[in-house]
Amino acid sequence: MNKRGFAIGIDLGGTNLKAGLVSRSGKIFSARVVALGKNKSPAAITGLIVREVRSIRAGTVHKVCAVGLGVPGIVDFERGIVHSSPNLPAWRNIPIGKLIARRAGLPVVVDNDANMFAIGESRFGAGRGRKNMVLITLGTGIGGGLILDGRIFHGDEGLAGEVGHIVVVPKGVKCGCGRRGCWERYAASHAFEELIKFLPNAEQRSLIKKAPGLKPDYISILATGGNKSALKLWDYFGEYLGIGIATILNTLGVETFILGGGISKSFDLFAKTARESALSHTYKYHSNRLVIRRAKLGNKAGVAGAASEAMAG
Amino acid sequence: MNKRGFAIGIDLGGTNLKAGLVSRSGKIFSARVVALGKNKSPAAITGLIVREVRSIRAGTVHKVCAVGLGVPGIVDFERGIVHSSPNLPAWRNIPIGKLIARRAGLPVVVDNDANMFAIGESRFGAGRGRKNMVLITLGTGIGGGLILDGRIFHGDEGLAGEVGHIVVVPKGVKCGCGRRGCWERYAASHAFEELIKFLPNAEQRSLIKKAPGLKPDYISILATGGNKSALKLWDYFGEYLGIGIATILNTLGVETFILGGGISKSFDLFAKTARESALSHTYKYHSNRLVIRRAKLGNKAGVAGAASEAMAG
Repeated sequence: MNKRGFAIGIDLGGTNLKAGLVSRSGKIFSARVVALGKNKSPAAITGLIVREVRSIRAGTVHKVCAVGLGVPGIVDFERGIVHSSPNLPAWRNIPIGKLIARRAGLPVVVDNDANMFAIGESRFGAGRGRKNMVLITLGTGIGGGLILDGRIFHGDEGLAGEVGHIVVVPKGVKCGCGRRGCWERYAASHAFEELIKFLPNAEQRSLIKKAPGLKPDYISILATGGNKSALKLWDYFGEYLGIGIATILNTLGVETFILGGGISKSFDLFAKTARESALSHTYKYHSNRLVIRRAKLGNKAGVAGAASEAMAG
Repeated sequence: MNKRGFAIGIDLGGTNLKAGLVSRSGKIFSARVVALGKNKSPAAITGLIVREVRSIRAGTVHKVCAVGLGVPGIVDFERGIVHSSPNLPAWRNIPIGKLIARRAGLPVVVDNDANMFAIGESRFGAGRGRKNMVLITLGTGIGGGLILDGRIFHGDEGLAGEVGHIVVVPKGVKCGCGRRGCWERYAASHAFEELIKFLPNAEQRSLIKKAPGLKPDYISILATGGNKSALKLWDYFGEYLGIGIATILNTLGVETFILGGGISKSFDLFAKTARESALSHTYKYHSNRLVIRRAKLGNKAGVAGAASEAMAG
C-alpha cells in the first residue's frame, strides 16, 4: 500500500552521494550532493546518510514517510542488504537498510542504483506512461534496469539487467569479466579501442593522434566537427548498440529503450545507426513501435526513483 | 481472484487439439486428442472446441469454472483475440475467446501456446517451486515463454520470448526471418545444416550418408551409437544453445531454463556442453545456481497450463 507524504531519495556513488526530498509527482526539493570522505566504511556512510536525512526533515514542513537508497553493486532488495559493491570494497553483506532505519526512525527501501535510476526515468522521465521499459546506461561498461509491468524486475538474485555481458560476438575480444565478445566491449567507453580496428590503418593513426586514449568525448567533438573517421566510429558503435538492443527486444518483447550514462551525451551521433541496426535484427512488426530515447532526468533520476520506490514500498 | 472448481484446458495445434479437465493440482482427467478437419476456419474450430467443452462437462461431476486455450501465433491475451497464426492462415484478428465463451457459457482465457506450455511446466512440471523460469522449445525453430515473478510476461505486444531470433552470430547465416545469425539457425532442427560445416570434409560426407537430410533423430541415433562426428555435432549444438541461454540469463537474471520441444528428447547428448557454454558466458556467480532441465509434462503441459491460467484468471 502506498504511504502518505514525501520521501527522501538517496543515490550513493563511489565518490559522493546525492540526496533530495521528492514529491509524489517526482519534484525534487532540498537537492544536495555530499562528497564522501576518505572513510567509506558502512558506519561512516551510514552516519553521512542519517545526517542528511535529519537535515532534510528539519528543513521541510512536509511529512517524510520513508527513505529510498540506491547503491552500486549487488543488493538484496527484499532485505535491504548490500552483498558487494565494486566502488565500496569494504561493503560485504551490509544490512544498510536496517542500519539507517534504526537511526533515522523511518522505513528504508534499498536497491541497486541502476534499478532506482530506471524507476526514476520510468515514472517521471523519458519512460513515463510506458508499462515496460529497459534502461541502458552507457559508461565505462553497460548497465541495465528492467521495468516490467510497471515494476523493477530483479531476477533470481537481483542480477537482472546485467546486459553489458550479453555476448554479441562469439569468441570476440576479451572482456574485463574474463569472457569474450561481451556487448560492453563494443558499445561502451572502452569500445573504441576495438571499433577503431575496423578503420583502414591510415585513418586509425590519424584518429589516435587527434583523440588520445580514444576517449568518447574527443571522438564526439571530432565527429561533430565533421571528421569522417570519427563519424564512422560512432556508426560502428551504433551498430553494436543496436544488436544488443535487438537481443533484449527479442527476448522481452519490450519496445522502449532509454539510454543514460555518460556516453548518452553523444546520443545524436549514434541514435540513427543504433535504431537501424536494432530493426535489422528484429521482427518488422516492431518497426514503428521501437522507441530509443535519451534519459531525461540526468543524475536526478536516481534520487527521484529511490524516493518513489520508498513511497510505493 | 481465483475461481472455484476445475477448468478445461485446450491446446490448439496445426493438425489437432488436445483437451482435458484439469484439477487445481494439475491432474488431467478426460484427456483427449481431436484431429482438426480440413476446414480450419475459426467457425469450424470454435465448433469443435465447444463440442469438446460440452462433452467434458457432461462427463464429470466436478464443477467446471472456466476454459483456457493456447493458440500458436500472436495473441492479444487481454482481449482473447488471435491476431495471426502461422499454422492457421485464415485466422486474422479472431475474437476466439468471446466466440467460445458465448456458446459454452463459461469464461475463456486465451494466450499463446508457448506461454500456456510455460505456465504448465512452471506450476506442475520441471519448473515447479521456482518463481522465475524460462521455457525454451527446441523444434523447427526456437520458441520461448517467460515466467517472471510467477506470471507469464507478455511484453508490449505479446511478443515476449521470441528468443529464436536473438542474434548469436552477427552477420552469420541467413535465417528464414530474413535476418542473419539468429539463434535458431544454430540450435534447432535446421541447425545441423550449418553445424556440419565445422566438421572436416570427410566427416561431413560420411555423416550425410548416414543421416540423410541431417534430421536430429538420425544424428541422435548415430551419436548414441558412439559415432564421433554425430557426437561432435551435438557438442556444437550445445555450445550455441548455451550462448543463447547465457544471453537470456545475463538479460533477465533468471537461472532456471526448461527445455521442451521435439529436440529435447536428445537432452542427454547436448545438456553438458550447453551448461558449460552458458556458464562460460555469464558471471561465475551463477555457476552453482544455473538449472537447465528437460520439460517434464511432455505434451500435457499446454493443457495443464491453459486450464491453470483459466482458474487463476
